Amino acid sequence: MINVGIVGGTGYTGVELLRLLANHPDVDVKVITSRSEEGIHVADMFPNLRGHYDLRFSVPDVDTLSDCDVVFFATPHGVAMSMAPELVERGVRIIDLGADFRIKDVELWTQWYKLEHTCPDLVEMAVYGLPEVNREQIKGAQLIACPGCYPTATQLGFLPLLENKLIDHRRLIADCKSGVSGAGRGASVGALMCETSESMKAYGVAGHRHLPEIRQGLSNAAQRPVGLTFVPHLTPMIRGIHSTLYATLKDPKDGLQALFEERYKDEPFVDVMPAGSHPETRSVKGANTCRISVFRPQNDDTVVVLSVIDNLVKGAAGQAIQNMNIMFGLKETSGLSFVGLMP
Amino acid sequence: MINVGIVGGTGYTGVELLRLLANHPDVDVKVITSRSEEGIHVADMFPNLRGHYDLRFSVPDVDTLSDCDVVFFATPHGVAMSMAPELVERGVRIIDLGADFRIKDVELWTQWYKLEHTCPDLVEMAVYGLPEVNREQIKGAQLIACPGCYPTATQLGFLPLLENKLIDHRRLIADCKSGVSGAGRGASVGALMCETSESMKAYGVAGHRHLPEIRQGLSNAAQRPVGLTFVPHLTPMIRGIHSTLYATLKDPKDGLQALFEERYKDEPFVDVMPAGSHPETRSVKGANTCRISVFRPQNDDTVVVLSVIDNLVKGAAGQAIQNMNIMFGLKETSGLSFVGLMP
Amino acid sequence: MINVGIVGGTGYTGVELLRLLANHPDVDVKVITSRSEEGIHVADMFPNLRGHYDLRFSVPDVDTLSDCDVVFFATPHGVAMSMAPELVERGVRIIDLGADFRIKDVELWTQWYKLEHTCPDLVEMAVYGLPEVNREQIKGAQLIACPGCYPTATQLGFLPLLENKLIDHRRLIADCKSGVSGAGRGASVGALMCETSESMKAYGVAGHRHLPEIRQGLSNAAQRPVGLTFVPHLTPMIRGIHSTLYATLKDPKDGLQALFEERYKDEPFVDVMPAGSHPETRSVKGANTCRISVFRPQNDDTVVVLSVIDNLVKGAAGQAIQNMNIMFGLKETSGLSFVGLMP
Amino acid sequence: MINVGIVGGTGYTGVELLRLLANHPDVDVKVITSRSEEGIHVADMFPNLRGHYDLRFSVPDVDTLSDCDVVFFATPHGVAMSMAPELVERGVRIIDLGADFRIKDVELWTQWYKLEHTCPDLVEMAVYGLPEVNREQIKGAQLIACPGCYPTATQLGFLPLLENKLIDHRRLIADCKSGVSGAGRGASVGALMCETSESMKAYGVAGHRHLPEIRQGLSNAAQRPVGLTFVPHLTPMIRGIHSTLYATLKDPKDGLQALFEERYKDEPFVDVMPAGSHPETRSVKGANTCRISVFRPQNDDTVVVLSVIDNLVKGAAGQAIQNMNIMFGLKETSGLSFVGLMP
Repeated sequence: MINVGIVGGTGYTGVELLRLLANHPDVDVKVITSRSEEGIHVADMFPNLRGHYDLRFSVPDVDTLSDCDVVFFATPHGVAMSMAPELVERGVRIIDLGADFRIKDVELWTQWYKLEHTCPDLVEMAVYGLPEVNREQIKGAQLIACPGCYPTATQLGFLPLLENKLIDHRRLIADCKSGVSGAGRGASVGALMCETSESMKAYGVAGHRHLPEIRQGLSNAAQRPVGLTFVPHLTPMIRGIHSTLYATLKDPKDGLQALFEERYKDEPFVDVMPAGSHPETRSVKGANTCRISVFRPQNDDTVVVLSVIDNLVKGAAGQAIQNMNIMFGLKETSGLSFVGLMP
Repeated sequence: MINVGIVGGTGYTGVELLRLLANHPDVDVKVITSRSEEGIHVADMFPNLRGHYDLRFSVPDVDTLSDCDVVFFATPHGVAMSMAPELVERGVRIIDLGADFRIKDVELWTQWYKLEHTCPDLVEMAVYGLPEVNREQIKGAQLIACPGCYPTATQLGFLPLLENKLIDHRRLIADCKSGVSGAGRGASVGALMCETSESMKAYGVAGHRHLPEIRQGLSNAAQRPVGLTFVPHLTPMIRGIHSTLYATLKDPKDGLQALFEERYKDEPFVDVMPAGSHPETRSVKGANTCRISVFRPQNDDTVVVLSVIDNLVKGAAGQAIQNMNIMFGLKETSGLSFVGLMP
Repeated sequence: MINVGIVGGTGYTGVELLRLLANHPDVDVKVITSRSEEGIHVADMFPNLRGHYDLRFSVPDVDTLSDCDVVFFATPHGVAMSMAPELVERGVRIIDLGADFRIKDVELWTQWYKLEHTCPDLVEMAVYGLPEVNREQIKGAQLIACPGCYPTATQLGFLPLLENKLIDHRRLIADCKSGVSGAGRGASVGALMCETSESMKAYGVAGHRHLPEIRQGLSNAAQRPVGLTFVPHLTPMIRGIHSTLYATLKDPKDGLQALFEERYKDEPFVDVMPAGSHPETRSVKGANTCRISVFRPQNDDTVVVLSVIDNLVKGAAGQAIQNMNIMFGLKETSGLSFVGLMP
Repeated sequence: MINVGIVGGTGYTGVELLRLLANHPDVDVKVITSRSEEGIHVADMFPNLRGHYDLRFSVPDVDTLSDCDVVFFATPHGVAMSMAPELVERGVRIIDLGADFRIKDVELWTQWYKLEHTCPDLVEMAVYGLPEVNREQIKGAQLIACPGCYPTATQLGFLPLLENKLIDHRRLIADCKSGVSGAGRGASVGALMCETSESMKAYGVAGHRHLPEIRQGLSNAAQRPVGLTFVPHLTPMIRGIHSTLYATLKDPKDGLQALFEERYKDEPFVDVMPAGSHPETRSVKGANTCRISVFRPQNDDTVVVLSVIDNLVKGAAGQAIQNMNIMFGLKETSGLSFVGLMP
């Protein structure tokens, strides 16, 4: 059994890790931390876990965490980098669901996250945990930077086009719609039901922290710097991200469907839908799947890709577990066979 | 492996059976029927099932179904009774999620369902599939009448009080709130998002078909005919039933919490919450659990019980599988370890 | 023109007052206060008001408010009582949408609101602003205690039965369902979309602050102390209250429909629905109407009343304006002709 | 008083016309038609109208409608064109909320709507009822083709850019999100709460009927044929359209905010938000306003416009009334002073 620690267990990605790991056959959650909820039983905070765990929140402590084989950080940025160096030194594997190790350019990271980075060397050694791109490096990694939710949906949608240099890489558009759970479990007026339900709005149009991360991933795929306009929207639902991607084809022709199917044919968690399909976020609710469709409307030179995930699963906790499975040589789908909850 | 057939696979209980059975280790779904969708792949209708099934809808046919060990009927009333006699004769076990075999008084059934019953003898042999009451009979049963959703939440909430004759059985009140999935997947104006979202209403106050079923179950528990006022409400959510139950205590005193805990201490799917808790339907979303709290507000003589289930799981497909597990001597929780999806 | 001041304009009842008063022909909103938002334009906080107001939040100040003909307090309890005495002295009329003057028994108030009352004499002079009961006293009142949302829906539903002594007053049950806006606009985890959407739960079963208020109103109507079990529920919608009321008829017989119609035949904002109807909260969304139906299921001795309002309108801001109209001799429906937003 | 007839009163645009006209000071609704609901009182179908109308549905009949000054068609395409010629001949003014007269190219119309047009001459005389473009022609018009919902939000967002030739007109992108009421009030599985709530999906990516209408309007503004990719999305809310528009600036520079403000400074129903704002659909819920923001993210050459309306108001019934006001020389805002319902 793999002993697991979770730092920051009171947010939505924390409880989602617990939900998924409860049914993982090879894992034992040993430690879960929260400063504010020390001593509280996890099931008292999250009653869906009643009967599945006998575990209390403890104050984060490197010594205790060192007994774990792997530690997940389900924390705001800045936390993982404060504990990672010592854990790495002690040989503990780390999967950071936060943003501390995602951006390779540390200055750029500082510019967007308004914080000095305290361990740039770990940024260098960290592997960006998108298995569909970096599976081999993940196998040997000690430190995983788990991708953000928007970056996951958006990269998986653009990858086949960019890797094959089929589109004008200078003017990519990602119009993304997220459920409210992306805003986290903190008390805030902006995420109240009365403020978000029965409404739709864009936010962060002038600049959102996932922009540099997406740009980095897409530039890697394109092997040159891409231009990207990224507009996130707050959608009146709890879970789900729908990325609608637009690009101009250099040489408009058929064959995009086959290209996408080929690219992802061995991927257990990317499902290229039949031509003409419109994936729904609910089809992946609770599941680790990304479903993708590709269109060339009116047979024109604009390609449209639709890519949906559950932001808390393939966009966070599920992908983190997928990374863990790969790191520890487990079956990649272990504990992730959940079928989307529909309706 | 147990070979399973499902009659009526295009409704919400049908797809929910498929979702749950996809992760059941001892089961193979061999047949799923639908007259209207013959030849269609189940995953084309329900994309959440993509990658989990290689199965197409077929026209219901007794010969094909006879090869199954057990057949689930996820059909409107009237269908199961038309096929059950022949299947029973051939030794196939039947679990009817519909209403055909729930009411022992066939005349009463006809009065509420406006249909002549075509096999009253099967009604007699059918076991009412509420494991918390009838576990022993379920073990040997060939035909299970799976309880309705409201009846499940309501009976589990009232049972400890009635079995112990603690309340005035003549004036029970069940104020029940159901998500919209209870209305089924048929096209109807009344279940449109624009008609049900952002609104609350009661319906069927003058009389609802679950009334005689609940009354029968409660009367059995009380060992005398009970009086019941049952008011169902349509609630703007997809899944979930919240039963709020009221009764007058004959001899108001403490000890109700202990009574409920004792009654359900060995039940894998009934969770008596700590005193003072308010169960939320979301804590059982997708899960087979019923969570219950009991109150005596202001230390008065009125007892209030709160009982929540997922109408599609413990109120339908999950309970059906629980019955199957018991019938076939499997572990009762097999395939039902799903943790409620929260948030 | 009547000059209006609003104290506490940043909550949901505050913005609802502004929405409704924007179309009131006889009113000019002169002052709106908020300590935290001083100097901010109301339309910057509530963009629905853009183009309708040229008004900024100011710090609450008795001198400024004294220039108003009437001041609405849309504040948490404790605020109105701190400013009311001086305003009353200066002849300003006051309509308190909070709880400070609702409960005539000041000790009882203190017990439920955990606060000493600083002006018990004003409690005595305050008129409880339920026009359907106290219209005459409201005409001459200087200080109105506007009823709570649950109390409004519940009292209007029970009144005809209690005034005519038709029901056992010792065991009344009010099972009430409220939209999330009832929880206010403060940042809190419990009112987040992710915590409240797609779920149903009861709360405050052991005791809720509206209980003594409802009991007081019902006892007045019954002319004796009533016994009441009140269970509020949080419903996944923004606006609306649905009260489902249960009582035992002393002498079960027909005629309840006529009784209700007669009681409310001259009331502009109470709509007794045709027999057999189930009122929906959405039918009063944004409107000042209370819709009521009365049932005697199975011709039994239990009467069921369904009563719906918009908690922010007839349950708060609309009723406050109705009171103002009466106090100032305006047409009672002035500014309140809004039709419910449906769908 | 202007005598109004409404053909097709049982859909969402029909009831919305009734809601808005109930408070219009200069209008009397004399006739409302529905074949299926003949003789039914409008308030029995739409209880929000109780107390506001004394009107029953009648079978559509040209003679009766001829007594009206203006007839609104709130019908599926094909209906208005079957009755319009005779009404026009009799001098009745017509405002068609459907699609029959929107597309000037009748062949193109037939291609998208799969129907022969029966009165192409009326198409020619019809005025496209977007007051922000065609106010002068509307004044004298006898027949108005009221714009579709997506076309309204999208055109108002693109107009200032195209009229001033600031963007590459060959590759416009409109990523549009609509509430479910856009799907109408017909019984359909696809619009059930259980199918649409808690989910997001695109639809009609390969081609949607509003595409040629939007393209026509934008091409007029640009004075040349534009290229447009239009992707509509079904959003889990009842009302609201959010158009997110993308285009490439020919000569990237500041001044877009001023340009938009100038373009719409005299428009009573277009609100250009302060720079940096993100309009929310809820801010216009029930109101006839279109709110717009314009961005140039990262000071790049891509311009992003956010444009929100209530699809049933500025996208249908409200705009129709605005047209009527202009046609009859009434105050343009008459009956349309409704403030958006928020929360």
